[in-house]
Amino acid sequence: MELKIIKTENKKAKPQGALGFGKYFSDHMFIMEYADGKWQNARIQPYQELHLQPSASVLHYAQGIFEGAKAFKTKDGKIRLFRLNDNLDRMNDSAERLCMPTFDKKFVYDAIKQLILIDEDWIPTDEGTALYIRPAMIATEPALGVHASKSYLMFVIVGPVGAYYAHGLAPVKLLVEEHYVRAAKGGTGGNKVIGNYAASMKAGENAQAKGYDQAMWLDAKYHRYVEEVGAMNIFFVMNGIVYTPALRGSILPGITRRSAIAILKSHGYKVRECNVDIRKVAEAAENGTLGEIFGTGTAAVISPVGLFGYKGKDYVVNGGNMGEISKMLYNELTGIQNGRLPDKHGWVDIIKE
Amino acid sequence: MELKIIKTENKKAKPQGALGFGKYFSDHMFIMEYADGKWQNARIQPYQELHLQPSASVLHYAQGIFEGAKAFKTKDGKIRLFRLNDNLDRMNDSAERLCMPTFDKKFVYDAIKQLILIDEDWIPTDEGTALYIRPAMIATEPALGVHASKSYLMFVIVGPVGAYYAHGLAPVKLLVEEHYVRAAKGGTGGNKVIGNYAASMKAGENAQAKGYDQAMWLDAKYHRYVEEVGAMNIFFVMNGIVYTPALRGSILPGITRRSAIAILKSHGYKVRECNVDIRKVAEAAENGTLGEIFGTGTAAVISPVGLFGYKGKDYVVNGGNMGEISKMLYNELTGIQNGRLPDKHGWVDIIKE
Repeated sequence: MELKIIKTENKKAKPQGALGFGKYFSDHMFIMEYADGKWQNARIQPYQELHLQPSASVLHYAQGIFEGAKAFKTKDGKIRLFRLNDNLDRMNDSAERLCMPTFDKKFVYDAIKQLILIDEDWIPTDEGTALYIRPAMIATEPALGVHASKSYLMFVIVGPVGAYYAHGLAPVKLLVEEHYVRAAKGGTGGNKVIGNYAASMKAGENAQAKGYDQAMWLDAKYHRYVEEVGAMNIFFVMNGIVYTPALRGSILPGITRRSAIAILKSHGYKVRECNVDIRKVAEAAENGTLGEIFGTGTAAVISPVGLFGYKGKDYVVNGGNMGEISKMLYNELTGIQNGRLPDKHGWVDIIKE
Repeated sequence: MELKIIKTENKKAKPQGALGFGKYFSDHMFIMEYADGKWQNARIQPYQELHLQPSASVLHYAQGIFEGAKAFKTKDGKIRLFRLNDNLDRMNDSAERLCMPTFDKKFVYDAIKQLILIDEDWIPTDEGTALYIRPAMIATEPALGVHASKSYLMFVIVGPVGAYYAHGLAPVKLLVEEHYVRAAKGGTGGNKVIGNYAASMKAGENAQAKGYDQAMWLDAKYHRYVEEVGAMNIFFVMNGIVYTPALRGSILPGITRRSAIAILKSHGYKVRECNVDIRKVAEAAENGTLGEIFGTGTAAVISPVGLFGYKGKDYVVNGGNMGEISKMLYNELTGIQNGRLPDKHGWVDIIKE
């Protein structure tokens, strides 16, 4: 398939001040259409509104998936792309789960590279910033029966981002959610499908209303085993061993999660992917064997946890401070991403020397 | 709030031949916008595309809800609206579950009435047809953080529909789904949120690949208690008693379900809302005490079940035929809807005499 490139004649002003997360988008976007059984009309075009029929199936049945990745620009002008291939693999897995068409990963990867190079002046260079890459696929068939759509749009938008959390790396407070459930085994929690996220908002708002930052999710069956936190994977350090919930189908197979596990192992840490019982975590917090807790995700990279609330009681984690392992992971991950450290794992694609 | 009316200057051609379901939409639509903490700019306008930013949150996080209702036109020109108030109540419940703004039910009800009257030449009059009404609310904030949107669109589209299933009232074949799960307690299954539907497609496609029409959903915890079928509620007649799964938070509180229960009770049937164990249903099918099974929903009204497959074995229901109770309910519900029978329950609003 040919990739057509239509450049904008009206470049937008760049944002001034704090970037925040997901607020600003560059001058161009990648888009292609699926119809008559194939992807077609692939193009990089000026960033613009999508025109959808009011009956478009994504608006009624949420047949939609997405990804999040990042590119970085070093002071010397090199542009570095972090594990985008892994994101595109996961996106094709998500497509299968929602009965959507898969796509040619190499073609899309190259299109995203071109998009980034065209909009390279949008990549921020300050410490902690990145160009966030958001591929998405949505169902567009203008018909209301509940069935897989016959037509789709796939698009990629990119934009400069700062810290995901307004307060940066300050430890967050989590409320263990005992009523609402994010995902059940046999559901869509193990894929990056759009429906997972709206379903999580109520618990997040409840946590915030009670003075916490995010919800910590438990499993749907026993309400006992930790699954994720907010929209991140989660790690617990107890007795010097690093635990993270095993992927059981209801947990997103995070790419930052996978990266963190690889880095931890390369540093000699014992990492156990298993069931993590919240009651044992609470016990560990009480008897002093809980070291630290942190979340992992593309947006925040590493999010240290300073406190969690469970059954009406608050448990302080690591004196409310960011732990040594969290710091090491943050430094190493961002170092690999922005070129400060060598890319020993082969995660970075330098798309401009 | 004022309702502005902008009429189209280009009326569309009416569909010829079979209407199918959800394929055709009328000349106008209702729409209003939520911004700065309030609903505004309410209007009936020519049916047209929605213009959304590529970052609009509904496309990434599925913050969206909908409803389905029907209006009917009798040969003498009367227009009858069925239980729309109940749909709008349920929609406000869904809005709260997904952290979306509620709306003034009376205002929207009146706007839908006006929309139907403006497009009344779109209401079909043949037996089994109706004007399908689809209210929807979607999140439109152009920002990618996972949080409730600050802006929304609410719109209502309407269009003529025939039978939901191409083969009309012919009994359907169901496959009991033991792997995929539609919803867990604490999730969003008890509300009409868009994410529930994409999550259900894979099981539907699997059932169809094996020669069945739809999946029968079991509960997320025990994989034993029946929840719904496809996108409908479900009823079982065993030993002359009518059973339907109790609403436990993961089952949609169907309006046709509620109507069917009221009609059944008014005819003297014993109706039990409780856990329905699929193993007991299979036993009843084997020992001859299973009378009939049927689904209920706005689109199909009553959908008789002729067979279900469970653990590799097929169980024929009522000799593969539509049962007497299904027939009675279909006749009574459609009779009340189209005015053939008196509206003893007060479900019909005659909006044009």
